[in-house]
Amino acid sequence: MKRIAFIGLGHMGLPMARNLLKAGFSLKVFDLVADAIETLAKEGAQAASSAADAVQGQTVVVSMLPASRHVEGLYLGDSGLLKQLEPGTLVLECSTIAPESARRVHQAAAEQGLAMLDAPVSGGTAGAAAGTLTFMVGGEAATLEQARPIFQAMGSNIFHAGPDGAGQVAKVCNNLVLAVQMIATAEAMALGVASGLEPTVLAEIMRQSSGGNWTLEKYNPWPGVMENAPASRGYTGGFMAELMAKDLGLAQEAAQVTASSTPMGALALQLYRLLLKQGKGQQDFSVVQQLFVE
Amino acid sequence: MKRIAFIGLGHMGLPMARNLLKAGFSLKVFDLVADAIETLAKEGAQAASSAADAVQGQTVVVSMLPASRHVEGLYLGDSGLLKQLEPGTLVLECSTIAPESARRVHQAAAEQGLAMLDAPVSGGTAGAAAGTLTFMVGGEAATLEQARPIFQAMGSNIFHAGPDGAGQVAKVCNNLVLAVQMIATAEAMALGVASGLEPTVLAEIMRQSSGGNWTLEKYNPWPGVMENAPASRGYTGGFMAELMAKDLGLAQEAAQVTASSTPMGALALQLYRLLLKQGKGQQDFSVVQQLFVE
Amino acid sequence: MKRIAFIGLGHMGLPMARNLLKAGFSLKVFDLVADAIETLAKEGAQAASSAADAVQGQTVVVSMLPASRHVEGLYLGDSGLLKQLEPGTLVLECSTIAPESARRVHQAAAEQGLAMLDAPVSGGTAGAAAGTLTFMVGGEAATLEQARPIFQAMGSNIFHAGPDGAGQVAKVCNNLVLAVQMIATAEAMALGVASGLEPTVLAEIMRQSSGGNWTLEKYNPWPGVMENAPASRGYTGGFMAELMAKDLGLAQEAAQVTASSTPMGALALQLYRLLLKQGKGQQDFSVVQQLFVE
Amino acid sequence: MKRIAFIGLGHMGLPMARNLLKAGFSLKVFDLVADAIETLAKEGAQAASSAADAVQGQTVVVSMLPASRHVEGLYLGDSGLLKQLEPGTLVLECSTIAPESARRVHQAAAEQGLAMLDAPVSGGTAGAAAGTLTFMVGGEAATLEQARPIFQAMGSNIFHAGPDGAGQVAKVCNNLVLAVQMIATAEAMALGVASGLEPTVLAEIMRQSSGGNWTLEKYNPWPGVMENAPASRGYTGGFMAELMAKDLGLAQEAAQVTASSTPMGALALQLYRLLLKQGKGQQDFSVVQQLFVE
Repeated sequence: MKRIAFIGLGHMGLPMARNLLKAGFSLKVFDLVADAIETLAKEGAQAASSAADAVQGQTVVVSMLPASRHVEGLYLGDSGLLKQLEPGTLVLECSTIAPESARRVHQAAAEQGLAMLDAPVSGGTAGAAAGTLTFMVGGEAATLEQARPIFQAMGSNIFHAGPDGAGQVAKVCNNLVLAVQMIATAEAMALGVASGLEPTVLAEIMRQSSGGNWTLEKYNPWPGVMENAPASRGYTGGFMAELMAKDLGLAQEAAQVTASSTPMGALALQLYRLLLKQGKGQQDFSVVQQLFVE
Repeated sequence: MKRIAFIGLGHMGLPMARNLLKAGFSLKVFDLVADAIETLAKEGAQAASSAADAVQGQTVVVSMLPASRHVEGLYLGDSGLLKQLEPGTLVLECSTIAPESARRVHQAAAEQGLAMLDAPVSGGTAGAAAGTLTFMVGGEAATLEQARPIFQAMGSNIFHAGPDGAGQVAKVCNNLVLAVQMIATAEAMALGVASGLEPTVLAEIMRQSSGGNWTLEKYNPWPGVMENAPASRGYTGGFMAELMAKDLGLAQEAAQVTASSTPMGALALQLYRLLLKQGKGQQDFSVVQQLFVE
Repeated sequence: MKRIAFIGLGHMGLPMARNLLKAGFSLKVFDLVADAIETLAKEGAQAASSAADAVQGQTVVVSMLPASRHVEGLYLGDSGLLKQLEPGTLVLECSTIAPESARRVHQAAAEQGLAMLDAPVSGGTAGAAAGTLTFMVGGEAATLEQARPIFQAMGSNIFHAGPDGAGQVAKVCNNLVLAVQMIATAEAMALGVASGLEPTVLAEIMRQSSGGNWTLEKYNPWPGVMENAPASRGYTGGFMAELMAKDLGLAQEAAQVTASSTPMGALALQLYRLLLKQGKGQQDFSVVQQLFVE
Repeated sequence: MKRIAFIGLGHMGLPMARNLLKAGFSLKVFDLVADAIETLAKEGAQAASSAADAVQGQTVVVSMLPASRHVEGLYLGDSGLLKQLEPGTLVLECSTIAPESARRVHQAAAEQGLAMLDAPVSGGTAGAAAGTLTFMVGGEAATLEQARPIFQAMGSNIFHAGPDGAGQVAKVCNNLVLAVQMIATAEAMALGVASGLEPTVLAEIMRQSSGGNWTLEKYNPWPGVMENAPASRGYTGGFMAELMAKDLGLAQEAAQVTASSTPMGALALQLYRLLLKQGKGQQDFSVVQQLFVE
């Protein structure tokens, strides 16, 4: 369990891989961007020339890719990675993708006799860098126990959400609630300030009352209320609005599969898409505050 | 500051008045329902035959009424209570009403030279009984200091929200966020369970993650997740859905006054009204969960 | 029935009064803006120095004012116009206001023994100029018969909506549907075009199919689809977005009074308020199209 | 062009096939339900034992299936129908499916050198029986001219919506608008009636005014307003709510592909899913009226 192939070295994958290196794991890494490979190679990882090369001789695969199609493209099909892995290899798929998509990879892995977990994370690039990510894990509990030291090198909270795909379901449920309460908080802040309240006073009252939520604790969307929140540095450097739109889209895919009604989650997605139309997709997702002020 | 007229002895007012009695204040009480007066009279309050009678000889008035029209009816106009109060009387208006309505009473009080606070509460009937209400107070800070011992006899958190009407604004902002996050939580619970997750597991993951909010801490809407939540006793005994609809309506009134856009808050109101059409207005507001399950 | 006091000579009132003049009625006119009075005086109206002056010697009052508070301010109270009208004077209140507000004026008129109708119009400034307005009339049918020649001088469709206030109710119901179908049409146009369709082709298919509605017939929001629609001249010269926001606000007031759930109407209001935040309140209401394109 | 294979003989497909028979086309038919095949066999069609059998010797294929997965399952893959068709065969795919799905079939057909059209219909089972369906056609104009006589045997309006997939796009755009205006009309009817108006009067005013739309012309959701509408016969016998939910889901899929914001369409889907939770999925889609009345 010490030799890991790490595939996908983007904003999240790179710092995650780095934390594995620091923890003493032996890494072979691949990404379509050569710079990312080189960066890690300088820090002690072995550079691979392809995903197939990366898994050679390794006993664990960790992947961190942008979307369902990349993950399915990597693992599935006759030339997919699952067909090339040695028996006993452990697959830890950490991308945020559709639960249905995760289940397809699970099933294909099972057909190859491979143990796999879907393990999307929350905590953003800051959490990835600090090694304090939250992992929401779907798959067998015994497999999770096997993988736990690897997750612990990258994160501080590791939840077993349930069976195959359950990690993705937990992630989209969580982010649905997060997006909605961010927007509701932004609405309330704008309404309160327009009605004559001081933003810091209103924020504090709600934080300590039944309106309290994570955004009021850590991430207030009104500029200046929290010194360290993205809102106080021009909505930069947090979790991009376009990624929240992506996650809300995954929630709607899951709702479609189960015929679930999610009026708040659906509206949140539409409002984020309005923001994207306004060219704000790459700002922090708390920029939704700007919809509600002049 | 020891002689209080208490007007409005309903589900909230009665236990609030009782706590004032217990704290040693001298009370003269009035309500349109004679039983409520008698109940408190047996416990040491003086029974009044009218609101005008209740204020005779008292130095503080506390009122706790259902809606804006009752409050304006009590205080305003040529035969209103404000015209009958002695100079120096302190008016503590604790009903949840429209900020505009509160401001009208503030202005009329000021014209009579009377100090007044708008001080709506949160915490429900349980908080009223336990003396742990939260007071959100609008008006002058000095007046709040004068009134603080009275509020402390009834509550545990006393916030100064800002100028006249600010207490009401803070309350409607808080309850807007509360209603929206309750509905979002209910949506996410239903979506997660329909996708195969255990409700207790999903609830715990979200509670500890960025989806965390007051409803996940104290008041989960899925039956059985929290033993002491209304959802686990048939949605009884909490904060009624029809009262949440009332508060969401006040939020929309405030939004109308300030031309604020509150898409989540507006949708929450419409969904609560759907529940009311289904005859569920007198169940706890977490009954919104039932919209999302078969 | 030939001598009319006309109060309120704005964008709508001025052309309406002009059509009454053309039809041979004798007019005495008042507005807070002197220019408007002078304009009509040159065309044969008698200039009045106040509302009270305008009604002297006239047998009918027509009022066309911006909002509920102006109408209540004009007619109600001890110094209100209703107390100054001769018995037998007919009051035709054509402003778009809250049904509750209209009912208050009706009741006060009845107390003075005066016949009154609430008669809001649709058709915009173009319809006002052309004399092709639609009148939606609340009050007694017999009174409407009396007033019919006056309405006919200004409009082409005169509907008896029902009892006191019913004209206003019909207006807000109609405009709720209008706003929602405008937004839905704009969404569908944007979705179709983004998916590769020609806007004129899509518009024509929907117009002839079950998606057909008044906006597709007369007022397509996509620039260039209809030569004469505001969308094809930079969203100018139609019915301003801020007036639609006003009417949607009146619909929500009516919904509040009756505890009606109107999720689409409520969302439409919030979206129009977003537009107002973007500084587009004075553009034609079809400018909502711009929310949905980059 | 006289020998047609017809695959999919459900509520829509059966009467469509029947109209082709009546028009003199030679039909070979297949469905998974044997009864449907027998019914048409008695009327002159040739019974096929499989889809592959049905296309033997025929020059046109018409398919009418429930959803994207059935259509992709029928045509695509190594054992799919496209690989078995003679060169020159014309494929008319009339199911309502995702535009993306239709484009996949188009592309596979092109790879086999086969001409194909996506041609979803509107008009419901009544239109299918009467031969008055509307066809919204995507693909090459020349192919449409070839197919026109076939469509004309089943429908009365044939629109060329644009390139491959455009028929499906036009259909989902149309049905998005239809669903939203049905709900808005239902809201307005409920609001107006709750405010004291006669439903028939309100319906007629809106129908003739700027709120006018197809539902007010043909399909009023308030029972008793239109004798022949489903609302007047217990919401039976029209277009099922669950099918409208399906089409709104397809609209959201198309919106996801193009990152389009469709707040009204998204809310409509959520409201239809609430209805489905209440067990009303098989009633006519105007049953949404019942959400808004007690």
